[in-house]
Amino acid sequence: MKVYNNPGRNQWADLVRRPVIDKESLSKTVENIVKTVQQEGDAALLRFAILFDVSAPENIAVSDGEMLQADALLSPGLKDAINSAYTNIYAFHNAQREPEKIIETAPGVRCWRKSSAIEKVGLYIPGGSAPLFSTVLMLGIPAQIAGCREIVLCTPPDRNGKIHPAILYAARITGVTKIFKTGGAQAIAAMAYGTETIPKVYKIFGPGNQYVTKAKEWVQQDGVAIDIPAGPSEVLVIADKTCNPDFVAADLLSQAEHGADSQVILLCDNLPLVERCLREVETQLENLPRKTIALKALSLSKAIVLGSLDECLEFSNEYAPEHLILASENASNLIPQIVNAGSVFLGKYSCESAGDYASGTNHTLPTNGYAMSCSGVSLDSFVKKITFQELSREGLEIIGKTVQTMARAEELAAHANAVSIRIKEKNNG
Amino acid sequence: MKVYNNPGRNQWADLVRRPVIDKESLSKTVENIVKTVQQEGDAALLRFAILFDVSAPENIAVSDGEMLQADALLSPGLKDAINSAYTNIYAFHNAQREPEKIIETAPGVRCWRKSSAIEKVGLYIPGGSAPLFSTVLMLGIPAQIAGCREIVLCTPPDRNGKIHPAILYAARITGVTKIFKTGGAQAIAAMAYGTETIPKVYKIFGPGNQYVTKAKEWVQQDGVAIDIPAGPSEVLVIADKTCNPDFVAADLLSQAEHGADSQVILLCDNLPLVERCLREVETQLENLPRKTIALKALSLSKAIVLGSLDECLEFSNEYAPEHLILASENASNLIPQIVNAGSVFLGKYSCESAGDYASGTNHTLPTNGYAMSCSGVSLDSFVKKITFQELSREGLEIIGKTVQTMARAEELAAHANAVSIRIKEKNNG
Repeated sequence: MKVYNNPGRNQWADLVRRPVIDKESLSKTVENIVKTVQQEGDAALLRFAILFDVSAPENIAVSDGEMLQADALLSPGLKDAINSAYTNIYAFHNAQREPEKIIETAPGVRCWRKSSAIEKVGLYIPGGSAPLFSTVLMLGIPAQIAGCREIVLCTPPDRNGKIHPAILYAARITGVTKIFKTGGAQAIAAMAYGTETIPKVYKIFGPGNQYVTKAKEWVQQDGVAIDIPAGPSEVLVIADKTCNPDFVAADLLSQAEHGADSQVILLCDNLPLVERCLREVETQLENLPRKTIALKALSLSKAIVLGSLDECLEFSNEYAPEHLILASENASNLIPQIVNAGSVFLGKYSCESAGDYASGTNHTLPTNGYAMSCSGVSLDSFVKKITFQELSREGLEIIGKTVQTMARAEELAAHANAVSIRIKEKNNG
Repeated sequence: MKVYNNPGRNQWADLVRRPVIDKESLSKTVENIVKTVQQEGDAALLRFAILFDVSAPENIAVSDGEMLQADALLSPGLKDAINSAYTNIYAFHNAQREPEKIIETAPGVRCWRKSSAIEKVGLYIPGGSAPLFSTVLMLGIPAQIAGCREIVLCTPPDRNGKIHPAILYAARITGVTKIFKTGGAQAIAAMAYGTETIPKVYKIFGPGNQYVTKAKEWVQQDGVAIDIPAGPSEVLVIADKTCNPDFVAADLLSQAEHGADSQVILLCDNLPLVERCLREVETQLENLPRKTIALKALSLSKAIVLGSLDECLEFSNEYAPEHLILASENASNLIPQIVNAGSVFLGKYSCESAGDYASGTNHTLPTNGYAMSCSGVSLDSFVKKITFQELSREGLEIIGKTVQTMARAEELAAHANAVSIRIKEKNNG
């Protein structure tokens, strides 16, 4: 990690900047894939599978047989782990249900909001070396609580045309309704426009590489909603003298092992402590299976010494990290100063991996500075809130004059008439 | 209005389809405007003002003097109306504050969400014939309640380089921090990237023509959040024999007068009633100042007779209207059947114009079918919800095994280490 010792404020803008991904070059490729799927449906999916994934699955749809098989194949230990994670994630997201609250804004004017599940949602689970079944829980559980009628899951199969049993198991317990063996930009297009076998959905969720991300941006222009634009994962750790450097090192590494493009930042109010943490990183790095990846990520990472914890928090707010770890015994006192972050981990026993898997919070979070304007995925992401209003005759009479005055000032006479014709009725009756 | 008497299900897909706007043709123009503003800042704004708005304002920023002037110019009657609307809208949106709720998902594992205002937001208010000060209230009030630090408002000035006093008054009482005289795609670009005088914001709100909408889509690709993609306004009225045809007609017309492209749909379970409503539309139309506009809109509008109220609601859900009016004495019994809609108006005294101005609900709503996946603007639109978690040593020990098992199955050893190193500490200590 590169160490920056008390950089001037004028350097902050550079230090918080993320590596820029050249979307233009992707654009044409993705446009071509998306449009082909839109026009040719399943046939295109199979062709792209051969082109990109080496082998095309016999059937795009996962069969009941495969679901049962997965259940048998999965180790009891992993099953238990998935089940306990499920319980915690369910508890946290279920508490996000919003009770209907009727507000009488004026006598006889009753207004409220009602949450209504998005009927059809699509979940994308990337393939690659490891099976990301935890993301199935993070997306499937809130969809299940919301009551989405159709929950479609797309994920690329392995070289043998199979999907990891843990993914299938997590899909089953979260009530996913249909699972398809397809990945990449073509899977996003399939869920956005529908094919002969894959139903069209209204909103698409899930992480992915830059092709997947670009495809999500593309279909968004066509009216399909998406969760959040995804970028490389990030952690920012703020550590002070009360921290345990071994723990800090472990947290930096657990982010670094994600990928060569993982963003890792350490903020601290004193240099010797930074040096201790970095020495410990070296030590722990040695025994990591994904050492090479972690090394790549660390080579681009920053350890920054600032004048005070307050300055560290200011910097963190300008960076707006996906994950923010406060490695301090006084973590909770710092909460009021946190303005921009996806998910925050307080104190020495709240490691990011706890939140990645089982604390109950969602791990689908805003990256690349989106924490300035976006929340992570929650139950809210799977519902829309419909507003309702019911006015009594008296209610309309009370606000009627206001409506008519404003409507006329906006030169909308018919808006005013809609009120006057109703009020007149009473005077006649 | 064209009458469709019991169309077959196979025709529904056509009947719910919106007119397609050719975005491609816009794309280049908007791209050029946006990039020019990004590169040249204020200079570009002035040039485009001369090009599109005939005259360029002396100063882009509205002065304190102009604010005071507006206060003096505004009629007391309109001021009162704006103030009472403010009170109702404030009451409804203030009730949307979410209390922090700590969930202990497992002993010693505490998780919660904290709402944090988006620091910098931009509100766009279109110009044109009428001053849309009501939209200033609808966007400014939730921003004010959320506590956004910087609330920027852009709106095109009139031919004399002035902004309507009602817009300035509404901006003042909602705590808008800066107001600028610029409109169109260039205003969106200015708020997205910032200029010498206009600050960059993180999220942009507000309606506008197709250039504005396209510009919002464009800057969204660049990481600036937007409220909802906007399209022409829509109403769908479901009427049964218990309705008052005069009221139904008035509601259809108050939507039709918005613009030639307004979407107006009447659903009913019997033909004679439809014919009565349409005759009444003819009558009321005569005295409307915006008759020509309303006529254009009505010529493209649909009155559809279906077999039952249930079918009407099914059709409405497939259409997903921005505004849904239930012109029936049994309106509230139909609520459970409503799945997709922006805002719903129940019973004979709940006219859309009440919600457009003063009932308290927001009038910035999803159009063009977005009600299938999106909510209208609310307090939620101006905050992000940051998740927090705090684990005690015991808490980590309880979920630790789950985290480690899942991390190893996802081949993320460092994620597992972050737990084991913390649990080990205890055994040693």
